[in-house]
Amino acid sequence: MIRHHFGYDAPSRAKAGKRLRPQLLLRTALEEGGRIECAIDAAVAIEILHNYSLVHDDIEDGDDLRHGRPTLWAQYGVPHGINAGDALCAISYLTLLHEEAVVPPDRVLEMLHVLHDANLRMCEGQGLDIDFETKSHVTMPQYLDMIAGKTGALFAASCELGSLAAKSDRARARAYAALGRAYGLAFQIRDDVLGTWGSSDLTGKPSGADIARRKWGFPVVWALALPPSDERSVVERAYAQSARLDAAGVAGVIVALEGLGARAAADDAHDRALDAADRLASESSLDRHRSIREFLAAGARRVA
Amino acid sequence: MIRHHFGYDAPSRAKAGKRLRPQLLLRTALEEGGRIECAIDAAVAIEILHNYSLVHDDIEDGDDLRHGRPTLWAQYGVPHGINAGDALCAISYLTLLHEEAVVPPDRVLEMLHVLHDANLRMCEGQGLDIDFETKSHVTMPQYLDMIAGKTGALFAASCELGSLAAKSDRARARAYAALGRAYGLAFQIRDDVLGTWGSSDLTGKPSGADIARRKWGFPVVWALALPPSDERSVVERAYAQSARLDAAGVAGVIVALEGLGARAAADDAHDRALDAADRLASESSLDRHRSIREFLAAGARRVA
Repeated sequence: MIRHHFGYDAPSRAKAGKRLRPQLLLRTALEEGGRIECAIDAAVAIEILHNYSLVHDDIEDGDDLRHGRPTLWAQYGVPHGINAGDALCAISYLTLLHEEAVVPPDRVLEMLHVLHDANLRMCEGQGLDIDFETKSHVTMPQYLDMIAGKTGALFAASCELGSLAAKSDRARARAYAALGRAYGLAFQIRDDVLGTWGSSDLTGKPSGADIARRKWGFPVVWALALPPSDERSVVERAYAQSARLDAAGVAGVIVALEGLGARAAADDAHDRALDAADRLASESSLDRHRSIREFLAAGARRVA
Repeated sequence: MIRHHFGYDAPSRAKAGKRLRPQLLLRTALEEGGRIECAIDAAVAIEILHNYSLVHDDIEDGDDLRHGRPTLWAQYGVPHGINAGDALCAISYLTLLHEEAVVPPDRVLEMLHVLHDANLRMCEGQGLDIDFETKSHVTMPQYLDMIAGKTGALFAASCELGSLAAKSDRARARAYAALGRAYGLAFQIRDDVLGTWGSSDLTGKPSGADIARRKWGFPVVWALALPPSDERSVVERAYAQSARLDAAGVAGVIVALEGLGARAAADDAHDRALDAADRLASESSLDRHRSIREFLAAGARRVA
């Protein structure tokens, strides 16, 4: 089942994920003077932990496709989906425990603490996201709180673990965690833009997928914080109903969001998150992760 | 949600679990000369890990009642059920990491390894159990393999962690793991007898609950390994159909099992598991956990 999830049972059709989190982790470790051998297990662990969350999220969201292939639960049923996700979670930590061979015990304990803490914060964010599904209104602070857990926690842990694996001191590891959190914010806003305006080639999901499912992404949350207007009412009405939106409904919401300036606002917020990351990096002389930054920046603009 | 699961939102109606696993852990630690302060976090961690598995099992099995109250998913929906279970899993390990204050780092790492490993083996057992639901036949070796993971792994970890917390050497901790595994086998056979012949006063579930859901417990697996007979056919036919059994069907299967001698066989197997535990304890001069042993032995006989 785990092979299926990762696409290893159909290599020709398998589309690998972006592996952003392990990339962040390894690049941080190398930049901090660490050897790749001291960080590779942590990098694998964070990618596996991310995938445990995807396996469970797909059940919680009722998503039956990922990268164009049936999700684990869609292929094997919900019980195996929950259980295989649980197994992935255990495997993630067992992989991190391999670090013991090359990293001192107290440092490994610190890394385990960071990863478990990130897992718990991810659950807190996911819990908020589940609650959002039944809400008729979500505020920007609520949205930011949700993605700080759901996305930010693992990005923060990626940078922090890379830094810890390279034996940076605690203060520097914390600074890297803040940097990772800023990347996570930029990434999630980018992902929300893709979920609204991205083509299915790019996302592997139908265009407007997040709107069809009435997901509370940045553009919608931002638009509904505006004063009343006809365009705002289109979005508000669509998100007040409980049924899935049809294609015409989705198209109407997307046009209204565009008219309200939600796309430009999302691009702005994304750029500000990357600028904040740059300032953090500059203040503490941290690696700027040029390639990650370029990936995030490029993705946000190529959705047209 | 977690308060609800543990019954803390309705203390008067809440029926606490038996807390067998933390009891095993603490009794082992004390017997091995450890201080309670060095084992209490591990004891809490194992009880929380057990409860994460219950929260997920209840979804996987479709059980909507536990101790007479709605299960977490039945009260809050499947998405929150999966997510709150995930959070409990993270909390379990964060609790074990508290040991760091009183136990040396390399010892805490060993304990974390034991607990993650037990979690993975529990998932393997649960995966087999899920597969059993669609099988028309399960052999005794398959059944024993399943419960070694689903029940044995956490009982083994309870004893092993107690021993490690008390600074026993690795060989002795392994011997305690084997002892815990034997208790787990006895406990599961006892639980299967209760699920078939136990009154609802004792189990909090309707009498014959396991049979109604066609769970593959010890009595049924044992009976279907017998040569063909009229009574065996009653059991076989009931377990070959896919619908839930009605009350008359359940009663028929229970009478057939009794007639075939499955109950006596289960009591025998239970006693042999406890005898094996005693031999293990005696060979390696381990604590016999008298009160746990008495609890297991008493439970198996008071179902009449």
